[in-house]
Amino acid sequence: MSSFEPVVKQLEIILPKPHLGDNRSHETRLRTELEDLLNEKVSVPLWVARKLKDLPQYNYQIKAFVVKDQYGWQLVDVFPKDVNKAPLGLAIDLGSTSVVFYLVDLLKKQVIKTVSEPNPQIAHGEDILDRILFAAKGNGLELLQKEVVELFNNVIDRLVKEQGGLREDIFYISVAGNTTMCHFLMALDPSHLCKEPYIPVENSFDLIRASEIGIKAHPLSYLYCFPNVGSYFGGDLLAGILSSKMHKSEELSMLVDVGTNAEVILGNNEWLVACAGAAGPALEGGVLECGMRAQPGAIERVEIDPKTLEVKYKTIADAPPRGLCGSGIIDLICAMFLAGIVEPTGKLVPDRDPKRMIQVKGDWAYIVAFEHETVHKRPVYITQSDIKNLIRSKGAMYTILNVVIQSVGIEFKDIDKFYVAGAFGSYIDPEKAITIGMLPDIPRDRFVGLGNAAGKGAVEFLLNKDAMVEVEKIKQNITYLEMNVRGDFMNQLTGALFLPHTDISRFPSVKEKLARLEQN
Amino acid sequence: MSSFEPVVKQLEIILPKPHLGDNRSHETRLRTELEDLLNEKVSVPLWVARKLKDLPQYNYQIKAFVVKDQYGWQLVDVFPKDVNKAPLGLAIDLGSTSVVFYLVDLLKKQVIKTVSEPNPQIAHGEDILDRILFAAKGNGLELLQKEVVELFNNVIDRLVKEQGGLREDIFYISVAGNTTMCHFLMALDPSHLCKEPYIPVENSFDLIRASEIGIKAHPLSYLYCFPNVGSYFGGDLLAGILSSKMHKSEELSMLVDVGTNAEVILGNNEWLVACAGAAGPALEGGVLECGMRAQPGAIERVEIDPKTLEVKYKTIADAPPRGLCGSGIIDLICAMFLAGIVEPTGKLVPDRDPKRMIQVKGDWAYIVAFEHETVHKRPVYITQSDIKNLIRSKGAMYTILNVVIQSVGIEFKDIDKFYVAGAFGSYIDPEKAITIGMLPDIPRDRFVGLGNAAGKGAVEFLLNKDAMVEVEKIKQNITYLEMNVRGDFMNQLTGALFLPHTDISRFPSVKEKLARLEQN
Repeated sequence: MSSFEPVVKQLEIILPKPHLGDNRSHETRLRTELEDLLNEKVSVPLWVARKLKDLPQYNYQIKAFVVKDQYGWQLVDVFPKDVNKAPLGLAIDLGSTSVVFYLVDLLKKQVIKTVSEPNPQIAHGEDILDRILFAAKGNGLELLQKEVVELFNNVIDRLVKEQGGLREDIFYISVAGNTTMCHFLMALDPSHLCKEPYIPVENSFDLIRASEIGIKAHPLSYLYCFPNVGSYFGGDLLAGILSSKMHKSEELSMLVDVGTNAEVILGNNEWLVACAGAAGPALEGGVLECGMRAQPGAIERVEIDPKTLEVKYKTIADAPPRGLCGSGIIDLICAMFLAGIVEPTGKLVPDRDPKRMIQVKGDWAYIVAFEHETVHKRPVYITQSDIKNLIRSKGAMYTILNVVIQSVGIEFKDIDKFYVAGAFGSYIDPEKAITIGMLPDIPRDRFVGLGNAAGKGAVEFLLNKDAMVEVEKIKQNITYLEMNVRGDFMNQLTGALFLPHTDISRFPSVKEKLARLEQN
Repeated sequence: MSSFEPVVKQLEIILPKPHLGDNRSHETRLRTELEDLLNEKVSVPLWVARKLKDLPQYNYQIKAFVVKDQYGWQLVDVFPKDVNKAPLGLAIDLGSTSVVFYLVDLLKKQVIKTVSEPNPQIAHGEDILDRILFAAKGNGLELLQKEVVELFNNVIDRLVKEQGGLREDIFYISVAGNTTMCHFLMALDPSHLCKEPYIPVENSFDLIRASEIGIKAHPLSYLYCFPNVGSYFGGDLLAGILSSKMHKSEELSMLVDVGTNAEVILGNNEWLVACAGAAGPALEGGVLECGMRAQPGAIERVEIDPKTLEVKYKTIADAPPRGLCGSGIIDLICAMFLAGIVEPTGKLVPDRDPKRMIQVKGDWAYIVAFEHETVHKRPVYITQSDIKNLIRSKGAMYTILNVVIQSVGIEFKDIDKFYVAGAFGSYIDPEKAITIGMLPDIPRDRFVGLGNAAGKGAVEFLLNKDAMVEVEKIKQNITYLEMNVRGDFMNQLTGALFLPHTDISRFPSVKEKLARLEQN
């Protein structure tokens, strides 16, 4: 999977036996050998020094495990030579909704198991703001930390048992999360993350022992938390950049993480500009009347025949429809726009297909799946307000991209690679996202879906002992644009509240497509 | 006291206040400032990162405390600017008999209090060997560790209370002890220290948090333990070398630590040769019939008029005599030898002063203080066996010195400085020690009493942030002569079992003195 060296190494060593002419201590004997082998300083914590009394019993033939830290290598355990032990690492994408765990075999350099669990903090609010408020009350912060740590411990327990191993086989943990999630994990006061001027307590986390925050793994297991750039630009994005490798390429790349917040990075191996702004939860299906997460029954693909107005959809796991998830919503708006069911202003045209139009709480709504098709025997529809929300979200997204582009004086067409990350990043059809004016109108083959870029970055960290330095360099190279201090955002947003945009010349391929449709 | 910089620094800092154009985290804001000030990397442990949430409350005007570790500086605490707090350090000479504590004000660079306490492990054996055997039984090792750590905690408690301070004011602890004492402190298996080929578990101790072994001081307080060179050459001696500064001088120096073991270092700023060997407890008064520690009532100075045979003595604190301590014993043997009460072979001459001669358990003994002079109303005397023991000890000491000298092909007269360390090092009168053939016959002004060199070295460590590197260099520079593998020791010892030596030409000034006495 990787040509790099992992953060944990297993070394088989036959030590010279002591005699009166060589009566170095066990620690010095082994440390000298390790430093010769690794060509670097090796530290020996007291816990493992105590174990070295067993060297004679092992006949001085051992397996030594060393881990990489910010200063060099560290001896963390010794066993007799013939012990059979696979050193494991755990990479964690600590999302506010889901926490994804990747168990990594550090000898084979492979992910051997992936597990996704809901973030237990949801009990204190789906919204991050609610949790920040909860943290401020009594021992709220400690509770939020404890819940996540307990989840970690439970998953560790389950994963190692499945492998027939032990908690102590986990020598290294890497965590990528947004700034707030990192503050919760480390029990750092998050109260100023959401108040101007948005000051985190900590951006760069020194390596800690996992045990320092109650994680039960190898007693000397390190926990690395990807650093944050600011309150709205967290370690998950740095992990994403790491996994995209855009920071190593001469090509100009743009990386967008699509979610409640739109986070954008533009740059190459010489410079990086980043920006984040609220795009609104509509893009994830969160606040829609019939919105839902990407689970079985979620409509993820929609097509409408512009002439017959026939609707075709596809659901996740081909289950009977339940609601609309992110990619389905984008497909739907695009199809409705091209079929003339919704105007460029976002207004529904009730007369265009009356059989699919209903009134919901005094609001027009368009039915995607009729009640007899759905699992809950209620129709799946999208309301006028949903559409307005969605257009505001996609408009915010486009505007953020545009502000970033303008800040460095280039145009969208100069971008060689356009990475789309985020929970549903890989499911978005760029063609459709461009048509509604959410993504810029550039050649489609420049779009690359990254999937769970944060998780991939966290895995990559464990497989590349030099990643810590690399991430630090990425962080140093980033110029962060504070969207809150840029007056041009609001001005630009207005034009983007159209389908695809008031200035259609920005979307030549969409203009062409609309013209073709009119001719037919 | 020192022109160096201590291992703890207090920095008064006014941080730039955050605003939308500068929304770095508290941690980054402070770390950047510290790294600029200190011109070195600064680490920020999680414990103190959590405290940084209070920066706004402190109006960004703070006192920051940083400590030096093996990698650079580390932030360990922050307070509001106007807090009045003296950072303290604790230097500990961890002896097998006594533990000496030096409370150090790291701002004023001064020892503010010295306390000596008996080592509580004595309950498991005065002799180190007994304690090593005790450690092997059940939880013996943990118990030995716990007893010493409890002593540390009690003394810390007492010392900081006297200063009107807190345990948390202690930011750094340095410990100098012999190899076995260090193993007990760190709970490292000591069982091979006393078995050929004498292998310690650990020689070079990585810095630990004092809390790791249960010491209650500042939560981030570091504990530095001076490294050992081998089973019989411990960190106390490296501390002694550090305090003597012999490793920095172009002059050739010899340092002797006089005790149950005689430990010797010879060298200069380019090379160091070290050796250790058993001198026997007689030199410390330990096994003598009337021997005692250097406490009030111990006879520490003795003179005998070679003509009248009148005895004059001085006791510690001028209390009525109780027994003989180390320096008193050396004085006594010297005086008895010059007065002809003991022969060069070590044999008592009962006829020389019959009124002071008695029989004790079938053995001749010479009375120093009659029963009516003493506190316990029993005479203080020295027996024939005592004298034999003492001569064996002083002979071993001289022989070890000689073996070291010969190993580098020089003579005693080439030595520019002769440091005498050890519990009673400063109390030995070189003139007397030379007369009995314990120390070499070189000009008297070359002798320098070092006092508690280990304790002084431990204090110096706290006052000199570069001492860790310096000690490591000393350790690297030392060539250790394993006395157990040198056959010439036993051959040479025979000649040294005389007063002063069978080869009187080695002691020309003693020969002259004896000649003068004979003339009178």
